[in-house]
Amino acid sequence: MNKINRVAIVGGTHGNEFTGAFLIKKFTQFPQLIQNYGFEVLTLLANPQAFAAARRYIDKDLNRCFLNKDLQDHTLSTYEDIQAKNISSILSEDSKTKADVIVDLHSTTANMGLSVILGNQHPFLLQLSAYLSAINPLVKVCYTIPEAGSDFLRSLCELGFVVEVGPVAQGVLNADLFQNTEELIFQILDYLERCNRGEILQVKNTLTLYKLLASIDYPRNERGEIQAMIHPQLQFRDYQPLHPGDPIFLTLDGKAIAYEGESTVYPIFINEAAYYEKGVAMCFTEKQELTI
Amino acid sequence: MNKINRVAIVGGTHGNEFTGAFLIKKFTQFPQLIQNYGFEVLTLLANPQAFAAARRYIDKDLNRCFLNKDLQDHTLSTYEDIQAKNISSILSEDSKTKADVIVDLHSTTANMGLSVILGNQHPFLLQLSAYLSAINPLVKVCYTIPEAGSDFLRSLCELGFVVEVGPVAQGVLNADLFQNTEELIFQILDYLERCNRGEILQVKNTLTLYKLLASIDYPRNERGEIQAMIHPQLQFRDYQPLHPGDPIFLTLDGKAIAYEGESTVYPIFINEAAYYEKGVAMCFTEKQELTI
Repeated sequence: MNKINRVAIVGGTHGNEFTGAFLIKKFTQFPQLIQNYGFEVLTLLANPQAFAAARRYIDKDLNRCFLNKDLQDHTLSTYEDIQAKNISSILSEDSKTKADVIVDLHSTTANMGLSVILGNQHPFLLQLSAYLSAINPLVKVCYTIPEAGSDFLRSLCELGFVVEVGPVAQGVLNADLFQNTEELIFQILDYLERCNRGEILQVKNTLTLYKLLASIDYPRNERGEIQAMIHPQLQFRDYQPLHPGDPIFLTLDGKAIAYEGESTVYPIFINEAAYYEKGVAMCFTEKQELTI
Repeated sequence: MNKINRVAIVGGTHGNEFTGAFLIKKFTQFPQLIQNYGFEVLTLLANPQAFAAARRYIDKDLNRCFLNKDLQDHTLSTYEDIQAKNISSILSEDSKTKADVIVDLHSTTANMGLSVILGNQHPFLLQLSAYLSAINPLVKVCYTIPEAGSDFLRSLCELGFVVEVGPVAQGVLNADLFQNTEELIFQILDYLERCNRGEILQVKNTLTLYKLLASIDYPRNERGEIQAMIHPQLQFRDYQPLHPGDPIFLTLDGKAIAYEGESTVYPIFINEAAYYEKGVAMCFTEKQELTI
């Protein structure tokens, strides 16, 4: 591993996810909190107009604007397209201020606790994740799709990842979650600092990883209108096992719909507000125990 | 009391409050559920464009568009101004389809349970409220500002009131809350039906009423930016007593701010997402025991 020279902490990529946005405001107001490291900590409020409007985005989802080809496409000129290009020019590989690590702070209405979401399985990220989940009981670690060619902000950097915290409503600042997220950021920064010093920090050589299998939409009618909601027995049960036959949806007229898969899965992002428009009621994951 | 001929159930006055909006969709899809009464039950999705966009409103808050003078002002022509005029032409006193009772369904990120919010103290509304809170342990009853000249939808009718349910995130359908709200609607309709038949339904001659005293803003800096959040000890404690000296806010840098009033109050709408832009962190109420 090369030495880490610059860490970017990004918040407000979605303007109505207040936890990250207000942490950025805090670090801007109290910069001494992040100045005691051997690397630079750069903080960035990624979507200030959406934050001011308390909306996820103004024109389009900023966290789907980071495809390499889109960043180079001058015909893309919505507010978020331009923000993505600005952020890329600050953080990406060929910039003077390139980030060696990106922590992109998000929040969710699902009961995700403090989730570290990886887009690749770089050994350094796996070791960091194992460390965090060993010292912090709120931490869970997910692995989504391979990141090459991803449209997420975190993909600007090989050591980029998302911290996703919840449950919290959009447009709301929850003090407990704010404090827990801040504590996690300092645990991450301390880990990076000690790595830079060459300390060996492995506290556990195993990691529980929730690997994305598929996303599941709500039952809809022929006009695309939602006909069922998350079953009360599944609500807020992110990361809990869902067995074949367990109820997942409840129709508007009160009938349970069961999970019909053949193996136990571990749903996450259950009833995330922003995913209604994306056709996602939850994501199924499989639980893996990695030796690292 | 005159006989009740028509009851309007309104949902989606705010487009991202899904509980009411989806109940309206359910009643539209299964009209037999509301056809067994001696009165007509009219259902109305009040802000369909905002519901489709999963936003509180498109141009302005529809539930602040019902001032009499605004309804008659032809220069007001935003989407919500026009919707307000349309709704008024359906429900108000001088319409052929005038509603004798309006139940306007809202939801909140605050822990309000099933709150019945009154804009006047009409004896019939107090009796209905006392009945509901006697038979349904989730029901609380608030009285806000005198309704004469109000800009709320419910003010189209003397027997108009709000049902405010929470906690639930904006843009999310929570099955438990959906079912609890539906059950409350049927309790209301049953009560009205039995009143029409002349039955005496008083189960209790007292009513606990939370009367609005004042709304309290977040601490802000000179640029109007929020500098503190709801204190963790107050979060989700709507309707619980707040005593002088109890913490109410936590500043971004972790300092508690105490409630400095001289008497115990009962906060409601604690950390409601939609009220950040209105400068309301919570509302203080006083708890009254009425004999009715």
